[in-house]
Amino acid sequence: MRRTRFDDALCPIARTTDLLGDWWTPLVLREAAFGVTRFDQFQERLEISRATLTQRLARLVDEGILERERYEEHPPRFEYRLTQKGVELFDVLLAMWRWGEDWLFPDDPPPLRLTDRRTGADLRPVVVDEHSGRRVGIAHTRVRRRASDRAAR
Amino acid sequence: MRRTRFDDALCPIARTTDLLGDWWTPLVLREAAFGVTRFDQFQERLEISRATLTQRLARLVDEGILERERYEEHPPRFEYRLTQKGVELFDVLLAMWRWGEDWLFPDDPPPLRLTDRRTGADLRPVVVDEHSGRRVGIAHTRVRRRASDRAAR
Repeated sequence: MRRTRFDDALCPIARTTDLLGDWWTPLVLREAAFGVTRFDQFQERLEISRATLTQRLARLVDEGILERERYEEHPPRFEYRLTQKGVELFDVLLAMWRWGEDWLFPDDPPPLRLTDRRTGADLRPVVVDEHSGRRVGIAHTRVRRRASDRAAR
Repeated sequence: MRRTRFDDALCPIARTTDLLGDWWTPLVLREAAFGVTRFDQFQERLEISRATLTQRLARLVDEGILERERYEEHPPRFEYRLTQKGVELFDVLLAMWRWGEDWLFPDDPPPLRLTDRRTGADLRPVVVDEHSGRRVGIAHTRVRRRASDRAAR
C-alpha cells in the first residue's frame, strides 16, 4: 500500500507532512537531537525493527537531514548526525512536545520534562513571529499566493 | 497493515506523532485552521477520498480536536470546527510551515506566503521558550524524568 505523496505540494505544511508522516521518523529525529548517532543505539532506544530503522535512516540521509559518516573501517560502521537542515527541524519537534504535553496527558503530568541544560528550568516552547516576537494567532494569519512578479525573479 | 501505536508513549513527541502521522491529518487541520468547516469543502480542497476524509474527521472528533455540529436538519449536515485543543495544534503546523518553506523548496521561492491578516507582512514562525522569549537551542535542551515526588502530587 503506497500512500499519497505530498512532496510536490504547493504548501510547506504538506511537504513536511510527507516526511514526518513516515511512521517513526519524528522519533528517529528526536533521538538524533538528543545525541544518538549509531544504528544500534537508535534500535535499542526505539525498539524499532532493523528493517524499518534502515529505511528511515536511508530516507533521512537522502533528504539531507542526517549525514552518514564512517567511524570504523573494519567492519565498516557508520554514525548519523543531523545536518543544519535536520537541526532546524527541531522546532517542529518542540512544537509537538509542547502540544503533546498540554493535551495528551489528561490524567497525570507527563513523566518527562524538557529543561534548559544550563539552568535546569522547564522549557515551554511557543511559536512566535521572528520579526515581531508576537504569537502567531490562527485568526490573524492568512495564506496568500506569491505575486507572480516575485516568483519570476 | 496496522502500524505501531505511540499513543501511550512517555514522550509528548511520540504521542503527537501518533496523531499527525495519520496521513492527511495535518492537511485536514490546515484547512480547518483557514476556515473550512464542511465535508464537501474539505474534500474538494484536498482532493481526498470520501472514505479517508470520513476516517480522519472521525478520529479528530474522537480526539477532541474538532467538534461536529449539525447545521441542517433535513438532510442532516454537519460542520467541523477546531476546539481549543485543535487551535493550539496550529503551532505545530506553523513550525512545519517554516521548516518546509526554508528547506523543501530548493529551486524556487515557495508559491505560498504566510502573512499577517492585519498588516499583510510575511510571517516567519520560530519557536521560543514562553518564559524567557529565547530560542530553544538543540544543544541547550535536555529531557529529564519528572521527579517522583512531583509526579505523586
